[in-house]
Amino acid sequence: MSKKNALYAQSGGVTAVINASACGVIETARKHKDKIGTVFAGRNGIIGALSEDLIDTSKESDADIAALRATPSGAFGSARYKLKGLEDNDREYERLIAVFKAHDIGYFFYNGGGDSADTCYKVSQLSQTLGYPVQAIHVPKTIDNDLPLTDCCPGFGSVAKYIAISTLEASLDVRSMAKTSTQIFVLEVMGRHAGWIAAAAGLLAEQDIPVVILFPEIPFDQDKFLAKVGANVKKFGYCTVVVSEGVRLPDGKFLAEQGTKDAFGHVHLGGAAPVIANLINAAHGFKFHWAVANYLQRAARHLASKTDVRHAYDLGRAAVQLALKGRNSVMPTIERVSDAPYKYKIGVADLKDVANVEKFMPKNFISRDGFGITEACRRYLTPLIQGEDYPPYVNGLPQYVTLKNASVKKKLPPFAI
Amino acid sequence: MSKKNALYAQSGGVTAVINASACGVIETARKHKDKIGTVFAGRNGIIGALSEDLIDTSKESDADIAALRATPSGAFGSARYKLKGLEDNDREYERLIAVFKAHDIGYFFYNGGGDSADTCYKVSQLSQTLGYPVQAIHVPKTIDNDLPLTDCCPGFGSVAKYIAISTLEASLDVRSMAKTSTQIFVLEVMGRHAGWIAAAAGLLAEQDIPVVILFPEIPFDQDKFLAKVGANVKKFGYCTVVVSEGVRLPDGKFLAEQGTKDAFGHVHLGGAAPVIANLINAAHGFKFHWAVANYLQRAARHLASKTDVRHAYDLGRAAVQLALKGRNSVMPTIERVSDAPYKYKIGVADLKDVANVEKFMPKNFISRDGFGITEACRRYLTPLIQGEDYPPYVNGLPQYVTLKNASVKKKLPPFAI
Repeated sequence: MSKKNALYAQSGGVTAVINASACGVIETARKHKDKIGTVFAGRNGIIGALSEDLIDTSKESDADIAALRATPSGAFGSARYKLKGLEDNDREYERLIAVFKAHDIGYFFYNGGGDSADTCYKVSQLSQTLGYPVQAIHVPKTIDNDLPLTDCCPGFGSVAKYIAISTLEASLDVRSMAKTSTQIFVLEVMGRHAGWIAAAAGLLAEQDIPVVILFPEIPFDQDKFLAKVGANVKKFGYCTVVVSEGVRLPDGKFLAEQGTKDAFGHVHLGGAAPVIANLINAAHGFKFHWAVANYLQRAARHLASKTDVRHAYDLGRAAVQLALKGRNSVMPTIERVSDAPYKYKIGVADLKDVANVEKFMPKNFISRDGFGITEACRRYLTPLIQGEDYPPYVNGLPQYVTLKNASVKKKLPPFAI
Repeated sequence: MSKKNALYAQSGGVTAVINASACGVIETARKHKDKIGTVFAGRNGIIGALSEDLIDTSKESDADIAALRATPSGAFGSARYKLKGLEDNDREYERLIAVFKAHDIGYFFYNGGGDSADTCYKVSQLSQTLGYPVQAIHVPKTIDNDLPLTDCCPGFGSVAKYIAISTLEASLDVRSMAKTSTQIFVLEVMGRHAGWIAAAAGLLAEQDIPVVILFPEIPFDQDKFLAKVGANVKKFGYCTVVVSEGVRLPDGKFLAEQGTKDAFGHVHLGGAAPVIANLINAAHGFKFHWAVANYLQRAARHLASKTDVRHAYDLGRAAVQLALKGRNSVMPTIERVSDAPYKYKIGVADLKDVANVEKFMPKNFISRDGFGITEACRRYLTPLIQGEDYPPYVNGLPQYVTLKNASVKKKLPPFAI
């Protein structure tokens, strides 16, 4: 096995812990300098790879790379950019291989969700055909927790913790005020197709907090929902609603459609919370407040789950270890060994089985009435929010690292993206 | 000085640290059992006092009272209920005095903002006239930081910390994504009349984060604002906007008026963020995301400022100490001794000077262009967000206490509120 350089790229929406995976990749590569030369990073993810806009991570100190573990966002920039299907456009794949060749890159670590797994899979298949073999390893990342073949996805556990705690805190607030003021609090959370994030609020049922969850998996039933909220207010004096941005009406329309789309063609959502809040007010007259957490939830490194941070780091490290073992077209996974005490080990999945498969909430995770979670779901979620992993603070604010991100000299002609 | 019971009541919107003041009041009273008998609490604040719905805090263990220090929300319930002016309605004040008399209450600790200070002042004046002297002490509390004669108000420092950190984290997120996706992030924060909370985001300027702040003190100038955002995106690739819910157009109308009012007659706001985001998109075409923090910001005990928690506790303790010294119609205050190192001492203000005075941001705290804060403001804010004061965690969630809140037997006929 001859020494080759590596390319690491971040893809899609960033998370509180994607940099912990970057940290795992780079720190592990640095321990194997006999096999892995320089770890390059794509500036703004795959865009940097295509445009040969590479970052030389060897210019970063060990301390700064270690600090990535406690820094949210994408340290090298990420991108919402999906390579086109091969039929339409083998030009982008050929360019990638040309960039790999020019910089002696033998390892490609792509850190992203389902769309990126597909890209990574195609790279793994093509490089051989195009005469420059590259080992392509996917490092899972998505707050949506919707990748198959892994017990969970780094980024999700921290969002789950953030949503559970924020919902708890806001619910206690409303409980204090309900006698003369707000009785309804509506929190809108991320989740276009899968209700994993919203489900996290279901962990509060054990604390006697009345939370009604609206999952994208369950078509919105207005009458049943309003009855449930009314019953909660009657019993508890107040009610909290956690609504997934992707909740749909029975006709399939999103509850709150803004009408814009992102680069992947996904409809861009937001604003389900005020719709729900006003609906409740019109039906029951209850006073309400609503919040839309949006990026706050996925960026909240200050409240990251220690388990999630460990998963993220471990998967980054495992990706490099798989590469060193000569593996190609794979993704390291989290395999749960036991719920309590929580134990996991690192497994491996073939990328062909990962790409473009979306994992929804299992039916037995949603309670019969459709507004809560089951004991099975609680057993699944609980370990993922365990442990606090606070960043260091200076002067009252977290000390997040901003890297130097030094450019690598270009060797190829420009490429139009 | 004969031994008397005390009544403690929480008022208005609750905060992450109002229970730390309750903790200060109760723990200090427990140390002076020779002077102070039972500390009663009004269930749902002044409503409980009027309806003789009192809580016997002596039924709570020392451990549970200590746990209040790390528990957000109002442990005894709060209320948005303003006693009417004396001219219109001395009946409510007479009832209060009757309840005080029935339960041998000689000390009234009222924990709230400006409106409550007014109520507390009236109680302090009236009890004497009505033949049952009570020492009325106001314990300051408001995330709006708008009480006069105190350097700051408990509750504000923690919101400021939450907003600064949330804005930092979301900004790093957008910075990672701006090349192909979101370029604008808009965060709506609380603050009807004063921009103290929004100002906290100005602390990020030192970290080279482009944040444009919209203060309620500055009439919204659309052209100037859009030009500023455009310039930031040109320079940094992205821009964060922190908008106060109370921002008004030059004609005095709120940017986002929902048309409803709360019990104090305040217009109920919410939804400035999407207005601003869509405005930017229409003018510049930039992709955007927006968030409305709402209750999450004031309930976020998980991210409380240690300085703020200490202030809250100290002021609760000081209120009892003032009572023991025979003072009436006063409010303990924070007096800043120095900025760096930060030092403060507890002062005293007369309630007649506090009631119904609102403290706005000083002119020299807002930058000349109206979109940021000055060095003087940074010097003021920085100490208030210092230190982390994490709650204990069990099973991944903060261990917030819920008290027993045992009722005191009623002695009086019912009272219609």
